[in-house]
Amino acid sequence: MRLGLDIGGTKIDAVALGGDDAVLSRVRVATGFGSDAVVRNAHEAAIQAAEAAGASAAALTSVGIGIPGVVDARAGVVRHAVNLGLEELALGRVLSERLGASVRVENDVNAASLGAYHLLGLTASMAYLNLGTGVAAGFVSDGDVWRGARGTAGEIGHIPIDPHGIRCACGQIGCLETVAGGGWVARKWGGDAAFPVLEVFDRADAGDERALALRSELIGGAAAGVRILILTADVETVVIGGGIANLGERLLDRVRANLDELALGSQFLSSLELSSRVRLVPPGSPVAAVGAALAGDIENAPVDA
Amino acid sequence: MRLGLDIGGTKIDAVALGGDDAVLSRVRVATGFGSDAVVRNAHEAAIQAAEAAGASAAALTSVGIGIPGVVDARAGVVRHAVNLGLEELALGRVLSERLGASVRVENDVNAASLGAYHLLGLTASMAYLNLGTGVAAGFVSDGDVWRGARGTAGEIGHIPIDPHGIRCACGQIGCLETVAGGGWVARKWGGDAAFPVLEVFDRADAGDERALALRSELIGGAAAGVRILILTADVETVVIGGGIANLGERLLDRVRANLDELALGSQFLSSLELSSRVRLVPPGSPVAAVGAALAGDIENAPVDA
Repeated sequence: MRLGLDIGGTKIDAVALGGDDAVLSRVRVATGFGSDAVVRNAHEAAIQAAEAAGASAAALTSVGIGIPGVVDARAGVVRHAVNLGLEELALGRVLSERLGASVRVENDVNAASLGAYHLLGLTASMAYLNLGTGVAAGFVSDGDVWRGARGTAGEIGHIPIDPHGIRCACGQIGCLETVAGGGWVARKWGGDAAFPVLEVFDRADAGDERALALRSELIGGAAAGVRILILTADVETVVIGGGIANLGERLLDRVRANLDELALGSQFLSSLELSSRVRLVPPGSPVAAVGAALAGDIENAPVDA
Repeated sequence: MRLGLDIGGTKIDAVALGGDDAVLSRVRVATGFGSDAVVRNAHEAAIQAAEAAGASAAALTSVGIGIPGVVDARAGVVRHAVNLGLEELALGRVLSERLGASVRVENDVNAASLGAYHLLGLTASMAYLNLGTGVAAGFVSDGDVWRGARGTAGEIGHIPIDPHGIRCACGQIGCLETVAGGGWVARKWGGDAAFPVLEVFDRADAGDERALALRSELIGGAAAGVRILILTADVETVVIGGGIANLGERLLDRVRANLDELALGSQFLSSLELSSRVRLVPPGSPVAAVGAALAGDIENAPVDA
C-alpha cells in the first residue's frame, strides 16, 4: 500500500492508494509547528491513513510527502519551510526509520502537479498553477515532474509583470504574486475574514468597488500566469489549483473570459487558444496527497528503505 | 555526411559536419524570396557545402534545416515565414526529392538552441535566448529540443512585462519584444544605420542621452528574459544568441551587471545566481546551421528518405 502525505501550514492531508491508484482512505491531522511536532504528526497521519484503509504500517510499500519549502528530493531534506517552523529537516530519513518504509519528500507544488495530472487523467504536458497565499507552478510531462536544474522550476510568482507595481516580499517590484497571490489580496483587502479572497469575490458580486478592483486584478494576474506558462513552456494544459481554486467556476469562468478578451486584441494570442487550455483541480480533491503517494512510488532510488 | 542549413531572411548559412561533429565546410548563399527561390537556393547551398567538404550530394546521410516561421517538424512543412515570402511550403519533401537524402525541417530558434548547446559543450538543461529582430527562446534538455505541446515553446517575446508599455505588433501591450527586440530598438532610434543596435551602443558610449535610455531598456529587457526563462523552466544555463549577441561582451557584461544589481535588492534572486548562468554564443559561429545538421540526424523518423 502506498501512502501520500500533504503537509500544509495547518493540517496534514493523508491518503492511502490501492493498487489501481484508487484512494482507499483519507485522514486529516493538525500539522503543529517545529520539527518534532511535524514529524510526530506526519507519523500519526500515516498510521491513521493506513489503518483507515484496513492495513498496518507493515503493509506500506512506499510513502510520499509533499511539503512547502526548498526540498532536496534526492536527499529527502526540506529547508526553509518557514510556516512550519522548519529550518532544515531530514524528513525522509527520520520518517523512514519510524515507518519502516521508503519515504520520498517532494515540494508540495510538484506533488500537487503530479496529483492533478493523475486525477484529471491527463496525458500531454501540463503546468499546475498554484494560487494560494503565494503563486507558484509545477510541470508534468510524460507523467513525470520537471524539477529544473536547481529545484526552482515554476517560481513564476516572482516574475515582475508591472514595473510600477508594489514591492514584493522577495524584494522585486510588481511580481505576479503581488496581484495573484492570496496573501497580497488579503493584505490589500484588510479585515479579518477567515477566507479573505472569498469575501472579496462575494463583495464584488454585491457591487463593492474596491472588491471589484481587487478581483479584477487577481483575475488578470491569474490569466497572466497562464500566459507565461504557455508562452514559455507551451504545456498543453494549465490546471489551476491552490486555495483560491476552491472558488471553482467563479474563478475559472472569469480567468477564461479574461483570456478570451485578450485574444480579441491579438491574433497571435487567439491562435494559442489559451482559454480552452485552462482547467481547475477537482474541488476538494486531495491532489497533493495523491501526487505525493505517486511520487513516493515512481521515483528512481528511494531515499531510505 | 550531414548537412545543416540555416535559412535566414537574407542568406542561407550551410555547413557540412564530419563524423566527429566537426565543421568540414561552411558556405553562404543569398536566400531569395518566395518558395521557388528559397528551394532553389537551399538546394544550391547544400550542393556547395557538400562539395566544399570534398563530397558529392550522393554522400549525404541527412540534411537538417533551420527556418523561421511556424514549423511542423514532423511533416517537414513551414508556414507563415513572412520575411521569406513563404505562406506554406513542404520544404522537407521538396528538398528531400531533389537531394535524395532525408531532410528534417526545424524552427530556426530551436536549431540554434541545439547548435549552441553542442558548440558550448553543455550537458545540463539550457535555454537559448534569441535577441534578433524579435525575441524568442528555445530549450534543450538531455541533448534534445523541447518543442512544447503545440510547437510554440519559447515565445517569451510576447509575454507582457509592462502594462504601461507600447503596443506590440502582436496586439498586446508592453511585450518583452518591444524593449528587447532589435526591430523595436531600430524603430525607436530611427535613422538608417545598417546595424541600428550597434549604433545605439556606440552613441550610448559617447554619452548620447537617448541612446543611453534605449540601451538601458534593451539590457533590462534581456535581463528580464533571462529571469523569465530561469524562474519558469529553471534551466541551468541561458545562452544569448541572435543578431544582437554579435555585440559580444558589450552586451553580456551589461546584462550580467543588470542581473547582479537586481540580486542586490532581492535575496531570492540572489540565491538563483542568475548572472553566472548567462553565456553568449561563440561570436560568428554557425550555431543554427550546426544545430540544423544535428537535428537532421538525431530526430525520430526522417520526413522522407
